[in-house]
Amino acid sequence: MQKVKLAEDLSFSRIIHGLWRLNSWNFNKDEILRLIEECMELGITTFDHADIYGNYQNEALFGKALALKPSLREKMELVTKCGIKLVSDQRPEHEIQYYDTSKEHILKSAENSLKNLQTDFIDVLLIHRPDPDMDPEEVAEAFTMLKEQGKVRHFGVSNFTPAQVEMLSSYLPFPLVTNQVEISVSHLHAFQDGTIEHCLQKRIPPMAWSPLAGGRIFTDSDEKTLRLQKTLQEVGEELALTKIDSVMYAWLLHHPAKIMPIVGSGKLERIKMATEALNVKMTRQQWFKIWIASTGEDVA
Amino acid sequence: MQKVKLAEDLSFSRIIHGLWRLNSWNFNKDEILRLIEECMELGITTFDHADIYGNYQNEALFGKALALKPSLREKMELVTKCGIKLVSDQRPEHEIQYYDTSKEHILKSAENSLKNLQTDFIDVLLIHRPDPDMDPEEVAEAFTMLKEQGKVRHFGVSNFTPAQVEMLSSYLPFPLVTNQVEISVSHLHAFQDGTIEHCLQKRIPPMAWSPLAGGRIFTDSDEKTLRLQKTLQEVGEELALTKIDSVMYAWLLHHPAKIMPIVGSGKLERIKMATEALNVKMTRQQWFKIWIASTGEDVA
Amino acid sequence: MQKVKLAEDLSFSRIIHGLWRLNSWNFNKDEILRLIEECMELGITTFDHADIYGNYQNEALFGKALALKPSLREKMELVTKCGIKLVSDQRPEHEIQYYDTSKEHILKSAENSLKNLQTDFIDVLLIHRPDPDMDPEEVAEAFTMLKEQGKVRHFGVSNFTPAQVEMLSSYLPFPLVTNQVEISVSHLHAFQDGTIEHCLQKRIPPMAWSPLAGGRIFTDSDEKTLRLQKTLQEVGEELALTKIDSVMYAWLLHHPAKIMPIVGSGKLERIKMATEALNVKMTRQQWFKIWIASTGEDVA
Repeated sequence: MQKVKLAEDLSFSRIIHGLWRLNSWNFNKDEILRLIEECMELGITTFDHADIYGNYQNEALFGKALALKPSLREKMELVTKCGIKLVSDQRPEHEIQYYDTSKEHILKSAENSLKNLQTDFIDVLLIHRPDPDMDPEEVAEAFTMLKEQGKVRHFGVSNFTPAQVEMLSSYLPFPLVTNQVEISVSHLHAFQDGTIEHCLQKRIPPMAWSPLAGGRIFTDSDEKTLRLQKTLQEVGEELALTKIDSVMYAWLLHHPAKIMPIVGSGKLERIKMATEALNVKMTRQQWFKIWIASTGEDVA
Repeated sequence: MQKVKLAEDLSFSRIIHGLWRLNSWNFNKDEILRLIEECMELGITTFDHADIYGNYQNEALFGKALALKPSLREKMELVTKCGIKLVSDQRPEHEIQYYDTSKEHILKSAENSLKNLQTDFIDVLLIHRPDPDMDPEEVAEAFTMLKEQGKVRHFGVSNFTPAQVEMLSSYLPFPLVTNQVEISVSHLHAFQDGTIEHCLQKRIPPMAWSPLAGGRIFTDSDEKTLRLQKTLQEVGEELALTKIDSVMYAWLLHHPAKIMPIVGSGKLERIKMATEALNVKMTRQQWFKIWIASTGEDVA
Repeated sequence: MQKVKLAEDLSFSRIIHGLWRLNSWNFNKDEILRLIEECMELGITTFDHADIYGNYQNEALFGKALALKPSLREKMELVTKCGIKLVSDQRPEHEIQYYDTSKEHILKSAENSLKNLQTDFIDVLLIHRPDPDMDPEEVAEAFTMLKEQGKVRHFGVSNFTPAQVEMLSSYLPFPLVTNQVEISVSHLHAFQDGTIEHCLQKRIPPMAWSPLAGGRIFTDSDEKTLRLQKTLQEVGEELALTKIDSVMYAWLLHHPAKIMPIVGSGKLERIKMATEALNVKMTRQQWFKIWIASTGEDVA
């Protein structure tokens, strides 16, 4: 599978597997291990976590599976996140959901992720959401300490605007390697608010969450969704793709910003719909047919 | 006429003539030549084209007129654009209107413009619209090749946001020399979205399309238009200008960003309304009277 | 009191006193002097003016008080502003309210401020509002001249977007030292439009005008205000602060951008509500409770 270079010593697989809903699949650790190995056989070597996924439980579920076959660790890249505090029985001290990007919380959360994932290092640690109360000096101190200790190799952000990326970057002695944002045929914000341009300008390949628009494209019946379904179907036929999932992935993969879709499924056949999209060559005209179906407006 | 310097070896006339509607004037090539010469006698030496104007025909109409007197070429600056693909009997392969800023399309479109305009070089080639599917590496390759071949002297953009200008610029080995955007007394977006500030910051003089708001200022009767008509009339009387067209041009010319209005008329008397505006000195108070008539709100 | 460093040779007191409404307090010059001295005893050494405050009268009222005890001058920092022209009996030539950032007007306004404030120098002169008709070369000429003459030590802006700050900065041979913007628990724009990030990125501490939301928080009864009142009360109890004014100040002071609230009151007990806020330590969770009460939405 195509690799995307994020730093001199770091590449991601173009398709990434996301563990957001791992706990909902009710897999035992052998089943999780099988899923990991099936992904890796497809060339998907990058796995996306967050401290809070599955009510703070998913990292540990993954870690227990990985512990069954520790030799896999060196063949994969692990991404996780911190900075959100959930209201949770696991964290009774949180009265509300809020953000915490203090040095103390970043260090504590990273240590926790290392323990839960049963690994010595995280490949990339992301700040999960832009924190209006962020002290960038504290973030820089925490990042620098984790890097020097060898606990985290690289750092990135998620859901940040270009201004927020630039601000945080100005406090760091090393570049941020990715911005994980929502991008899909039905969620074009990243193209419209300067995020994609900023990623291209700074040579920061973005990770795309909800690359299938959270599945609503299959179930909703509003005008926009109907337009998209029809156009995805038509383009799919032109490209000999049987599933519109693959067309949606192909639309992201076509783009020059090297968008890396995060596939959040526990089913192999759905994961393959993403990898199959790597083999098709969408034309610019097809790309714009889908763009126009999404916006509902011809281009000027 | 005042010249605006865009690069060491390139200046535009402050007033530019635009050929967008050339085909609608039903001029024969002698009449087109006469128009060109009349413009040049007024000091208007810069002519604005696009590959698609007049259903892909206007460049050739202009080129045939220029061929009657090729010596004019070295005394004028030719601007043209590429990147939009129209649904047209001239391009039956286009199923929809879409953007194409691929290396292949830019090179092909530029070659076509050279042939149609009957010239050896284009002074400035613009990307017509920001392309959400743009691969800036391809644009950079095409631009560099055209420059090295002597076919295009300089490059610019049109309708780009500051973020889009910065992104593309980061891939180019030379600066973009202009951004052609819509600016008029009734279309203030460029002042409100950071475009004018960005042009000032980067010392990129903008070209203004629809400097008379597409003529709607003369025909519409909504509140905003009525406010503008009244204020333009009043300021015109203070400045001894008989036509509000001239007041609208003077409002643009007053601004320190060195806005270059594109006059898209085939009638000499209308073109003169722009050049006459060069001779008046609008005060800041008058400029704000018009600004306030446009926004409908006092300044804070 | 905590000082905030704005330049090598300039620091402001963390709390600033604002003279916007000085004329409405009906103080004689002894009373104004007493207010100044009471502020300075609290550690408030920075005083915020504008040429136009009090219908162009407040600077002179302050200056007459200062003249009673000129030795205070070297212990305080004076900020004033220019660039707005009011419709006023004091300026009969103004037909409308508009902006003027011409070299001529900046120089004249600064001279006037020096005379009215009865001082030899202004510590910081601000452009009061972003002027869509600004010629940054003229501003740079005026600023440079005033600095070289020793009449103004440093320069800043007010109500500028990041793009406007960057643009003007690109014409200046020295950095802008502050951006005075509206920030309060009920006015979060500066957090949402990139202003706070830009201040953090450029290490420009912002001054906050209307830090108590113009007092509407005490009198309005819309849903947002009721939510804020309730939450400010609750957090106040947790922090042992008796007045929600202090909680609002503490919310601003908690933020790492070094926001400097401008207290615009003539009453000592109200001014103390700000200085008292310096002594409390708000938690991140408390800060977000107030943020959420203001936006009306949980964080994602």
